[in-house]
Amino acid sequence: MDRVAVIGASMTKFGQRDAWIRELLSQAGEECLADADVEPDEIDHLYVSNMASGEFEGQGGTPNLLAHDLGAIPAYTERIDQTSSSGGAGIYAAWRSIASGASDMTLLVGGEKMTHKTTAEATDVIASITHPAEYKHGLTLPSFAGMTARRYLHEHDAPRESLGKVAVKNHKNGVDNPNAQFQKEVGLDTVLESPIVADPLRLYDFCPITDGSAALLLCPESVAKEHADEYAVISGIGGATDTHVVHERDDPTVMGGVVDSGEEAYEMAGIGPDDIDVAELHDMFTILEFLQMEGLGFAEQGEAWKEMDKGTTERDGELPINTSGGLKSKGHPLGASGIAQAVEIYEQVLGEAGPRQVDADVGLACNVGGFGNCVITTIMEAAQ
Amino acid sequence: MDRVAVIGASMTKFGQRDAWIRELLSQAGEECLADADVEPDEIDHLYVSNMASGEFEGQGGTPNLLAHDLGAIPAYTERIDQTSSSGGAGIYAAWRSIASGASDMTLLVGGEKMTHKTTAEATDVIASITHPAEYKHGLTLPSFAGMTARRYLHEHDAPRESLGKVAVKNHKNGVDNPNAQFQKEVGLDTVLESPIVADPLRLYDFCPITDGSAALLLCPESVAKEHADEYAVISGIGGATDTHVVHERDDPTVMGGVVDSGEEAYEMAGIGPDDIDVAELHDMFTILEFLQMEGLGFAEQGEAWKEMDKGTTERDGELPINTSGGLKSKGHPLGASGIAQAVEIYEQVLGEAGPRQVDADVGLACNVGGFGNCVITTIMEAAQ
Repeated sequence: MDRVAVIGASMTKFGQRDAWIRELLSQAGEECLADADVEPDEIDHLYVSNMASGEFEGQGGTPNLLAHDLGAIPAYTERIDQTSSSGGAGIYAAWRSIASGASDMTLLVGGEKMTHKTTAEATDVIASITHPAEYKHGLTLPSFAGMTARRYLHEHDAPRESLGKVAVKNHKNGVDNPNAQFQKEVGLDTVLESPIVADPLRLYDFCPITDGSAALLLCPESVAKEHADEYAVISGIGGATDTHVVHERDDPTVMGGVVDSGEEAYEMAGIGPDDIDVAELHDMFTILEFLQMEGLGFAEQGEAWKEMDKGTTERDGELPINTSGGLKSKGHPLGASGIAQAVEIYEQVLGEAGPRQVDADVGLACNVGGFGNCVITTIMEAAQ
Repeated sequence: MDRVAVIGASMTKFGQRDAWIRELLSQAGEECLADADVEPDEIDHLYVSNMASGEFEGQGGTPNLLAHDLGAIPAYTERIDQTSSSGGAGIYAAWRSIASGASDMTLLVGGEKMTHKTTAEATDVIASITHPAEYKHGLTLPSFAGMTARRYLHEHDAPRESLGKVAVKNHKNGVDNPNAQFQKEVGLDTVLESPIVADPLRLYDFCPITDGSAALLLCPESVAKEHADEYAVISGIGGATDTHVVHERDDPTVMGGVVDSGEEAYEMAGIGPDDIDVAELHDMFTILEFLQMEGLGFAEQGEAWKEMDKGTTERDGELPINTSGGLKSKGHPLGASGIAQAVEIYEQVLGEAGPRQVDADVGLACNVGGFGNCVITTIMEAAQ
């Protein structure tokens, strides 16, 4: 079977944008087509990853609107929502679109417009994806993160500083990403002395609320060869849920969806964690980077913090993680985040990451929905 | 390649339901699994077709919640939104899920909970899917329907009564559907004397606002053979957009998305309109049944009304249309409607439609998003 290729990628500036969802999606879509030198009328399927444009700005029907704005009609369109992993879900949907033979050219555009809402308003929308039994007791995603971090530090005798170092590393990486919301370094003291949000986690352990969009263009490898000398292939992809009631998990420091989706992706790609050269992990909260490192086999259970201390995941380390700056510095426009992770992997494996470039042929992106309620893991390789 | 099989189907009672989206989805999902005698842990992909549970009741994350309620975790989950064709889009997504090899057992559940909202509130949400250039001038879906009906009657010298007969026929069929919102016949006079909504269309030319859910269980044909003696296959499926700005269409009485998605589905199935024994068309407005009949090749351009007059599409006619009662009597819970169409086709081709049964081996369902802004056509056959 033809492998599924990626021949174009783009992301808009992430941050507080003076643009509505329609404009953000359109910008990323146009830039992605330009990147691949593909005309809009070559697209036959168009997917939009977006969690809540209806709730955030009263805008429905974004896929049809985008098909109009790009000139892609009569392409088939669809919106994909998988909460904060809508972007990764979109990649999986686009992959199936090509792998099933339904499409020969699928454009995937994800985005979210959120910063015009107050934090309380945005949190209300986001919290509606958690189980009512927990939400009604005041458990939002940040509070899960706080409790999980506390447990992790206790169980594994890890220092609080190790979590802070995740924020420091990702901010440092983000300095070289012109599309990041925060292009500035932060010191460890700044992180550790920032206001408490969910004890022991503080403001700098959390990603911001963000507007932005990102896009990928997918096609069968046989079509990719006609369009580009260089392209990437999605060699492995998988998705899985974990208990929707977070407190039902046997071990709160293990994310089953990460483990299951990772195993599925590794199996499809025929490789393992040691073969990964670079990874983008969903650092919505600093603690999540550790949980994903362990769930994906990049570190033993309870030892991710030691790798952080050793510098393994720095840009010049053995396994650079979040070279893009991660959600932490890049920002987290829900529907775009998972796609922007893949954009970074695409650029890294093709050697197009500029000042962020590391030595990488194979990369992995892990996109986490809710508090690990659904996770999508994607492995991308430079085409041989 | 393994064909994509359907081994289970269900729909809840449609109407004004004293249940939230969570309960509706769960009911249809459980009944579908029971219908196929499949356990929840056999599902590996779970899709929810739903347009706007966030806007209608502040509920996000429905796919993960449903996976929890059904006991389907760690199945991968995703929400599909394609406005009023979310159900058809879900069928297409589930088809790709199986056809790509990503899943061996995909449960698709669609639903919407709307009746707790006022008509104005519901209309606000629905109108947000139309192009702002038209919406801002007061053009909602019903007003498009009124103008298109006026044009159709004028162009084709068709009597107003022919539209009324669509409503009469579909209500008559709905009497035998215990899950229909309105199980009652209406006379032609009642339709023609009902209050004007969008001239020349009157109240009985429109489907109601509805709560409800419907589900399908899909798997590769090789797996279907292990589970059931009788099953259906999706032999053809296609989706396409038409101009998002409705007034940009060359001929307002031709729906390009119907034509394109139909051609795609016929081509995949290797058949034509003459091979279809029964069809479910998206009669959100009576005029739409005519436009789809013509777009799908069941009648010549401008002549669908003559077939209606001749009784061709009655239950005992040559090509029965909307034997379920259609959206007109069954109701239109957005995310469920396209799936409920396929449920009827499934039951018809397997001979399980009870008092509504017609002689049919091959059926077609056409699900229309917006005012034909995106359309999905599905062809289903009894397995040989």
